[in-house]
Amino acid sequence: MYNRFDKFSLLTDFYELTMMNGYLNSGIKDQIAYFEYYFRSIPEEGGYAICCGLESFIKYIECLEFSDDELDFLSKKDEFSDEFLMALKNYKFKGDIWAVPEGTPVFPNEPLAIVRASVFEAQLIETALLIFFNHQSLIATKASRIVRAANGRAVLEFGARRAQGVDASVMGARSAYIAGCVGTSNVLADIEFNIPSTGTMAHSWVQLFETEYEAFKAYASLYPDSCNLLIDTYDVLKSGLPNAIKVFDEVLKPLGKRPKGVRIDSGDIAYLSKQTRATLDKAGYEDCKIVVSNSLDEYIIRDLLIQGASVDVFGVGERLITAKASPVFGGVYKLVATEKNGEIINKIKISATFEKITTPGFKQVWRLFDKTTQKAMADLVCSYDEKIDTDKELEIFDPVDTWKKKKITNYYAVTLLEKIFDNGKLVYKLPTLSEIKDNYDKGMSYLWDEVKRFEKPHKYIVDLSDKLWKTKTEMIQNGGMY
Amino acid sequence: MYNRFDKFSLLTDFYELTMMNGYLNSGIKDQIAYFEYYFRSIPEEGGYAICCGLESFIKYIECLEFSDDELDFLSKKDEFSDEFLMALKNYKFKGDIWAVPEGTPVFPNEPLAIVRASVFEAQLIETALLIFFNHQSLIATKASRIVRAANGRAVLEFGARRAQGVDASVMGARSAYIAGCVGTSNVLADIEFNIPSTGTMAHSWVQLFETEYEAFKAYASLYPDSCNLLIDTYDVLKSGLPNAIKVFDEVLKPLGKRPKGVRIDSGDIAYLSKQTRATLDKAGYEDCKIVVSNSLDEYIIRDLLIQGASVDVFGVGERLITAKASPVFGGVYKLVATEKNGEIINKIKISATFEKITTPGFKQVWRLFDKTTQKAMADLVCSYDEKIDTDKELEIFDPVDTWKKKKITNYYAVTLLEKIFDNGKLVYKLPTLSEIKDNYDKGMSYLWDEVKRFEKPHKYIVDLSDKLWKTKTEMIQNGGMY
Repeated sequence: MYNRFDKFSLLTDFYELTMMNGYLNSGIKDQIAYFEYYFRSIPEEGGYAICCGLESFIKYIECLEFSDDELDFLSKKDEFSDEFLMALKNYKFKGDIWAVPEGTPVFPNEPLAIVRASVFEAQLIETALLIFFNHQSLIATKASRIVRAANGRAVLEFGARRAQGVDASVMGARSAYIAGCVGTSNVLADIEFNIPSTGTMAHSWVQLFETEYEAFKAYASLYPDSCNLLIDTYDVLKSGLPNAIKVFDEVLKPLGKRPKGVRIDSGDIAYLSKQTRATLDKAGYEDCKIVVSNSLDEYIIRDLLIQGASVDVFGVGERLITAKASPVFGGVYKLVATEKNGEIINKIKISATFEKITTPGFKQVWRLFDKTTQKAMADLVCSYDEKIDTDKELEIFDPVDTWKKKKITNYYAVTLLEKIFDNGKLVYKLPTLSEIKDNYDKGMSYLWDEVKRFEKPHKYIVDLSDKLWKTKTEMIQNGGMY
Repeated sequence: MYNRFDKFSLLTDFYELTMMNGYLNSGIKDQIAYFEYYFRSIPEEGGYAICCGLESFIKYIECLEFSDDELDFLSKKDEFSDEFLMALKNYKFKGDIWAVPEGTPVFPNEPLAIVRASVFEAQLIETALLIFFNHQSLIATKASRIVRAANGRAVLEFGARRAQGVDASVMGARSAYIAGCVGTSNVLADIEFNIPSTGTMAHSWVQLFETEYEAFKAYASLYPDSCNLLIDTYDVLKSGLPNAIKVFDEVLKPLGKRPKGVRIDSGDIAYLSKQTRATLDKAGYEDCKIVVSNSLDEYIIRDLLIQGASVDVFGVGERLITAKASPVFGGVYKLVATEKNGEIINKIKISATFEKITTPGFKQVWRLFDKTTQKAMADLVCSYDEKIDTDKELEIFDPVDTWKKKKITNYYAVTLLEKIFDNGKLVYKLPTLSEIKDNYDKGMSYLWDEVKRFEKPHKYIVDLSDKLWKTKTEMIQNGGMY
């Protein structure tokens, strides 16, 4: 019903267009290039990130074409030749794309998407690719941390009102759902992406009735099957909770119904939730859940649980939907190779710090699993044409601290990058949301807890194959030229 | 050409719908209510915020209607009565709205928007209002800080690739432009909102040619009138800069053209920019501008300038477009009054901390200006029916620390809230972007520098009128009930 991807052809940085115009006029428009999407560090110094954004990117690519209005707009810019505008008019992505499926745990310095296309085609899509992957991976990664802190309790995404725009609220809700949230407050995310939307009442409901008791009574009468009352408008323990119990007794009990929950949105959650639990239990409502909200994140949730807070459901808003503690996922899109007469020519970008130098070449990422524990041990970034013989012992080494070596035996290896587009044709079957969630769950189960710890995690190994490392080192010696 | 506001009817939190259904079934659907949008603290402990979001909100309100698909979707939810769905089908906003024009400096605890409508109408629009105002005010506020730090040098918004979704990139570019940025990299923001888009080349351009020199030469030949070269792909001082100067000499000089600039995107900007300036000047390119980028914000820009960095243009990306240091603008939408037989009934929400208690009543905000300096001295939040007699001395006092009093004389007073919708009809003439920028400039000029300082600013006074303060205090004594 909705298509938020049909108007994004000009969702690009201006320099992509000046470069494209330049490629055309320099006669290298059809030069085949390999661009790679990767990131350099995990937000909040976490141990893993969750890759998201592929579905949006696919839909964007499929809708990519320039309308007369858009071409007319560009023609007024003075910078673009008629030939360029004509080429844009005929633009249709005809390249190849590989990417990591959504929900997969990923790590710094490994390609999460590779675009092989003419420079003309590949350059245009940089900005959109970065927006989709960066934003959605950011939120999925944050949500994963929060859901893990809740330790089995449900987490609801309640952040729409503080999201950075409408897309942020909707795509954020989707990313959070992939990474374990059980629902969202955002109805638009429900109708567009089938993220279960949920919610009951705000303080305004309570304020609009003459008394809190009347507000609760009206709500319980209307929604006897989903009665969840917000009890902190005036005073949780002196007013909200006694009124809620009175209404449960008077309205629900005669109907043979049980209350669903009470929600606390302010005050000292640890104290109030414990008092609330005891009072509810005493009144015979042991099954009434306690929902809490109010600027929560993984740190506060962990602390609440350490303090024995009695919480069944966490509603998490602004700190999830903006990834407040670290609101940027710094993925980049870099040229790593070109092709000349069918042969791949490696390309590099030099920097004063080794970590910021790009790794040249067309690649594949192999994830190595221990056969005994079924846990992931390391990722090995290889040239696309390298095969791993798992019958043999494999020695891997850190590409920066090369003395850090590890011998791998008794393992199997899986590739992470899947073919998405082949000559512009979608060859990837888009997984359902439930399949994406399964992929996330699988990923979480094969990572060691030490890697998933949200403070000072164990660093997961991502090494370069011997071949890639040598190529890179040689090119650096030559100052990046060849 | 574009309308990003025509599919947002379900951009709402689920509980708005359950409450609306409840209001209808409780017979209070048409109860008139006053909701107020305000925020409690300024991001990054700044001294002022810039209000933005009104235009989006207006467009949203004007497009607000439910399609059969949307109603069909809701009908499957089980929670909603047929009568409710019919009421949604007939939904058309028919209330009154007042708001602060975009670009105006604003402060905590004063209403920036007021909605007077039936609870049925007013409740639905909460989420969208919050998204538009919170996000856009956040970015405008951040951009204002960054532009001020640049102290007259141009700031370009380069953040699209790190934005939290497409809306964040586009509406963020618009907000940044209002608050003083001179352009954006984002072409979609240009075609939609006329934000000047700009940019020249990425590292990929340089990498795609055999040598950096050839890449520069090709670019200069193509764009002799807008030649801005990125000089840090291999090494700024040893390679990029000498190659750039060579190309300026060989390509531009014979054409009688001058280079526009060089851009540095990595390394020590202070050192590199000074060396670059000296070398350019020596080569006769004193007019060639130096553009820098790379994770800049107001703090880094200030430090660069203190260190004597020679920079003409700052390209600011992720830290602006996400307001990285403080990525949440915590505005809320609270019920402050209802109407009964035409009479206004005040409503309050209590909290354990005084600052979090709402201020009841239908209001207007008066900004008080010193006649001599033309500077804003304080804002006074009044009941809507209070008038200020500027011929008389006015004593104002802090609503929390009531011993903090101030006598105001020789002043004039202006109201901040303008009528936007009257009985659902738009009665506000949407200002052009240039008028909004003028409004921002005017606001900046009447604020004291002490308030605009981005660290430990002077706190601007926002007081309540005696009448509002008394009403609030009395209602708190009564525990919020009446």
